[in-house]
Amino acid sequence: MEYFPAPLEKLTEQFARLPGIGGKSAQRLAFFVLGLPQEEAEEFANAILDAKRNVTTCPVCQNFTAGGLCPVCASPKRDGSVVCVVASPRDVAAIERSREYNGHYHVLHGVISPMNHVGPDDIAVKPLVERVAKGDVKEVIMATNPDTEGEATAMYIARLLKPFDVKVTRLAYGIPVGGHLEFTDEATLMRALEGRREL
Amino acid sequence: MEYFPAPLEKLTEQFARLPGIGGKSAQRLAFFVLGLPQEEAEEFANAILDAKRNVTTCPVCQNFTAGGLCPVCASPKRDGSVVCVVASPRDVAAIERSREYNGHYHVLHGVISPMNHVGPDDIAVKPLVERVAKGDVKEVIMATNPDTEGEATAMYIARLLKPFDVKVTRLAYGIPVGGHLEFTDEATLMRALEGRREL
Repeated sequence: MEYFPAPLEKLTEQFARLPGIGGKSAQRLAFFVLGLPQEEAEEFANAILDAKRNVTTCPVCQNFTAGGLCPVCASPKRDGSVVCVVASPRDVAAIERSREYNGHYHVLHGVISPMNHVGPDDIAVKPLVERVAKGDVKEVIMATNPDTEGEATAMYIARLLKPFDVKVTRLAYGIPVGGHLEFTDEATLMRALEGRREL
Repeated sequence: MEYFPAPLEKLTEQFARLPGIGGKSAQRLAFFVLGLPQEEAEEFANAILDAKRNVTTCPVCQNFTAGGLCPVCASPKRDGSVVCVVASPRDVAAIERSREYNGHYHVLHGVISPMNHVGPDDIAVKPLVERVAKGDVKEVIMATNPDTEGEATAMYIARLLKPFDVKVTRLAYGIPVGGHLEFTDEATLMRALEGRREL
């Protein structure tokens, strides 16, 4: 790859660092950006700097916000007695899209993962405990992913919240809507059977 | 997508404009960049600006260069009497990787494509003709892609160069090394038969 000028190689390297972007894609993206009009390339660069500069985390729920409280925490229409604990702001967006949930959130920004050297102090567990300790929260819904790390994180936090007068629940497991029984793994089917409800 | 602060949405949009990056991937990339340390995010933004600022095209062959002549045109070891015409700087890199070619290049920066409103004046055809008109070039190898547009562009340029005392050749068609006859399309097989050589 010595056939391109250094600034182009550098840009390619920057793209190659992004998750899911391999060497060939990175090169294609770098060429694309190089082919953009000057203003549009500047817009791209500024969008990066702008996001870094102006996106902060909500002091209450730790979700991303453009300064101050996040829209959910600031809304008088939302029920602050229920807190849904998620791993990432993207999970907040997913739940909001369902339009079913009217409570607040707490974003952990990660899950406990000893394999990746992520401990409880590396994610936003402490602010959650402090929030619950204040006594306004009646229910905490653990909505971390249903994988090993998400489970372990949910269990760990549930244990931490034991001393407080708060109900801790977990999202239901089961077959996804629109899914096929035939292609559903055994663990999920087992959980779906366990969690069966009367019609 | 109203659940993320505006600067984050904007960054996501910028990523979504890139070729091959859908909405979900764009979001993932934006989150990744937001999670980078400040210096690294700045490095990324600067790489974009830097590439736009410092990458120019070689005045002779139109390939990308970091100012002045490109390394190939500047090298005294390369044979300037042979010019390989390609559609993009990436094709130059591909040919250079084969370590078989010792001539010069000419980068068209596109191919003629009436469907996409790209005419001969939108790509670097004129600088090529001027280069050949000077009389130092003995052979022009048309190395555009073997698809409809690449073919048409090669034909068009070959006709333009007719008046000059220059040999115009085209890359050989045939079965790719390591390929399977069984899975080779008829057009390629036909060309491979046509171009057969004595052993």
